[in-house]
Amino acid sequence: MQNPTAAMLVIGDEILSGRTRDANMYHLAGQLTEHGIDLREVRVVSDDAPAIISAVKALSATYDIIFTSGGIGPTHDDITADCIAAAFHDHIDIRPDARALLQAHYSRNGQELNDARLRMARIPDSATLIDNPVSIAPGFTVQNVHVMAGVPSVFQAMVASILPTLIGGAPLLSQTLRIDLGEGDIAGPLGALAKNFEDLSIGSYPFQKDGRYGANIVIRGQDMARINMAMDQLKLEFPA
Amino acid sequence: MQNPTAAMLVIGDEILSGRTRDANMYHLAGQLTEHGIDLREVRVVSDDAPAIISAVKALSATYDIIFTSGGIGPTHDDITADCIAAAFHDHIDIRPDARALLQAHYSRNGQELNDARLRMARIPDSATLIDNPVSIAPGFTVQNVHVMAGVPSVFQAMVASILPTLIGGAPLLSQTLRIDLGEGDIAGPLGALAKNFEDLSIGSYPFQKDGRYGANIVIRGQDMARINMAMDQLKLEFPA
Repeated sequence: MQNPTAAMLVIGDEILSGRTRDANMYHLAGQLTEHGIDLREVRVVSDDAPAIISAVKALSATYDIIFTSGGIGPTHDDITADCIAAAFHDHIDIRPDARALLQAHYSRNGQELNDARLRMARIPDSATLIDNPVSIAPGFTVQNVHVMAGVPSVFQAMVASILPTLIGGAPLLSQTLRIDLGEGDIAGPLGALAKNFEDLSIGSYPFQKDGRYGANIVIRGQDMARINMAMDQLKLEFPA
Repeated sequence: MQNPTAAMLVIGDEILSGRTRDANMYHLAGQLTEHGIDLREVRVVSDDAPAIISAVKALSATYDIIFTSGGIGPTHDDITADCIAAAFHDHIDIRPDARALLQAHYSRNGQELNDARLRMARIPDSATLIDNPVSIAPGFTVQNVHVMAGVPSVFQAMVASILPTLIGGAPLLSQTLRIDLGEGDIAGPLGALAKNFEDLSIGSYPFQKDGRYGANIVIRGQDMARINMAMDQLKLEFPA
């Protein structure tokens, strides 16, 4: 069985300016691997409508499932919802169901549902809402695109809301062997191994530590028996 | 003056599988901001030739300067150099200048320049080499694309080699104000401020800490006097 393919679109200036180190991509990648969904591409774009619209269209047409993060808050630079509507030629306005969620939340907290907060109820007509147990303002899904917040705690909660509704494939299994040799001494036998196990993905991740070279060899696949077989051959080539 | 635009292409499975949290994107973004180069987009693709070639072509045609990381080592999954050659219809083979660098290095260390290591001397004909003071195997530049290693220490050394040769614009300056209010209470005045200072970029980065909401407001631009003026108005709206 072929696992579904996915892409992520990170929206916002904070990563591109070097202000923030990514956390959401790392979280989502780990979750998708566990759920048997094959993350093939990530794009990071700034809070710029043409860039967002064109990336959403391209990714949505290429992969089975798209996840976005960022740009759905109440401030002037939060333009993701309008861009998603534009990408899918959908109508967008304040939606009664989203407005009711926000109204109940802010009434409970004695806060005003002002114009800024009402922006978070702007949801495309065709969208279904994604539950946000952390701060209530919902994410939403249009076609194959799941639109989520950028604040990591909220992003993670929305991922937890949406993942059980997606049909994944067999989870990607892996084993890792650390070899304390330069990649140049590993590459020959490793290439031969990869040719013998074309159903597996065999990656070499070099590192440098205390002035010495080494590499973590990661063997990935959906059949642990095959992974074990490849790992045994690798260990014969490179005894500990 | 318009600052030059840039994009980054991260090549390799380790980020997409959730194995590794990005470090190179974060490093490069900070360096480019300091050097007045405007990072507009990042893409992450796997070790897949069609994906790499198509991303290189698209980014190279859209932005002034492209940086890639990953996939230039000696193992079978290191296919970046061949993909760059393919993207630019350039010929690629083991190049004498790169081979000489490797030969000298491995002779000095008493290691064999075997077939795997010789792969790292595969450089497109039209490329100029990028110095690698850490582990010698060079990066290279073809047209507006700078091809660098994925190991963070080597990537950072190559960035340091190449950045002084690039003409940046005025560095992006910024000031940040932390406001301990929900974004919904900040958004109205902030939107008005952004309209009054259209020459500046005003971003709101919400956070949640100890159950309370707040946001860091970052005002960016090239003229510190204007940034100070906007910051003064922001502080009047939201006194500490």
